[in-house]
Amino acid sequence: MTDRLASLVSDTTLVAPVIVLVCPQMGENIGATARAMKNFGLRELRLVSPRDGWPNPAAEAMARGAEEIVQQAEIYHSVSEAVADCHDVYATSGQLAAGSKPCYHPRNMAVELRGQTDAGQRVAILFGRESTGLHGEEMQHARAVVSIPTHPDHFSLNLAQAVVVCAYEWWMAGLLQTAQPPHQPEPATLDAFEAMFSHLEQALQARGFFKTPEQKPTMLRNLRNLLLRAQPSEQEVRTLHGVARSFGREG
Amino acid sequence: MTDRLASLVSDTTLVAPVIVLVCPQMGENIGATARAMKNFGLRELRLVSPRDGWPNPAAEAMARGAEEIVQQAEIYHSVSEAVADCHDVYATSGQLAAGSKPCYHPRNMAVELRGQTDAGQRVAILFGRESTGLHGEEMQHARAVVSIPTHPDHFSLNLAQAVVVCAYEWWMAGLLQTAQPPHQPEPATLDAFEAMFSHLEQALQARGFFKTPEQKPTMLRNLRNLLLRAQPSEQEVRTLHGVARSFGREG
Repeated sequence: MTDRLASLVSDTTLVAPVIVLVCPQMGENIGATARAMKNFGLRELRLVSPRDGWPNPAAEAMARGAEEIVQQAEIYHSVSEAVADCHDVYATSGQLAAGSKPCYHPRNMAVELRGQTDAGQRVAILFGRESTGLHGEEMQHARAVVSIPTHPDHFSLNLAQAVVVCAYEWWMAGLLQTAQPPHQPEPATLDAFEAMFSHLEQALQARGFFKTPEQKPTMLRNLRNLLLRAQPSEQEVRTLHGVARSFGREG
Repeated sequence: MTDRLASLVSDTTLVAPVIVLVCPQMGENIGATARAMKNFGLRELRLVSPRDGWPNPAAEAMARGAEEIVQQAEIYHSVSEAVADCHDVYATSGQLAAGSKPCYHPRNMAVELRGQTDAGQRVAILFGRESTGLHGEEMQHARAVVSIPTHPDHFSLNLAQAVVVCAYEWWMAGLLQTAQPPHQPEPATLDAFEAMFSHLEQALQARGFFKTPEQKPTMLRNLRNLLLRAQPSEQEVRTLHGVARSFGREG
């Protein structure tokens, strides 16, 4: 384990997952998140619309040695902006919704995630607000859902403690060398995907694909999950973009 | 995993590890510990000389649904009293000291620990004070040391976050059925061990085993680690007790 630790620490080309806190309410939790990130070798913190504004002195006070992670945190107004440059996105959830996204627990997420980051991919893990987690439209930007197994009588984890578990698992996957190399070419970034998907939506709208306005959100969500699950490469996203353009063409 | 979860939750004979916080300084960390314990199915919290006295309103405020764990926490004046009824004790440490105690990371501790608790053994995990961890004499009551792997540049974990990692690993070991049945008969409780060891110390003293007063603590520590590592059964502790008595006898 010692040799592996040395290479984990010295190899400056290795990238770590990006932690995205969506609408965090308590500055203390932002600071505790930063501290835990630094414990497990993560550096990049992104905040979507923190409730109490930014900067927040309570966050720095809790960071204890990880103040620079707090100071360098990037602020976004939406999840889609926060993950635009990422190649893959996992969304944490208290419950594994029976949906069309692949579901992980932190350990099997970590095996895959370590393979992705070792291959230089930028991968985000989304954490929702303390009170109500991630909302439906925020989950849509994620390919996969990760849920921390807990006792069913008390499944509400503290925000920073949920970050601890995910960050620890990623670090352990590195130490124990359980990483699986990604089995596909590098996926497109989320902004490329979104640009394509927005085109596709317009084309479908123009072609009368949505029989009623009510069914539109559900059909779009199902399509989005299907395409995200495939983790399309840049080339594939370009192809899909071409499909959308050809559908959208008049005539 | 679902069947296993159902049996974990419904089997009321299963015991969970005991969390012992030694001289915790911040009430907030005690509350955050309780919350994390409940997330992962632990119930029994013991506190050795909490700095700010007890009860501590800051602890209950942070417990968020785990208030009863805080309210039922037991207070002790020493580590030896706090672990007296336990069959095995793990001590957490920021560094794996090169010593004569077996060393674990939380994952391999959890595999063994789950086997012990499934077999009905009461096992304690010790966590030291926020500032300086566990002191040498407190470590002596533990058979084994567990250290959470972290980035070497930032190894100081928040107290409650360290509890999260250990409790989560124990819960995961249950879900993933990686438990190893203990390979020995049930070990003696720590109070039986201490009674024997105290007799042994007196006997050694009486027999002039300690050549100089300076070497006594080191020799006792080495002997203690050796005997603890063997996890002697009640019968074996009785045998050792007989050895101590026969050595201590005049003549």
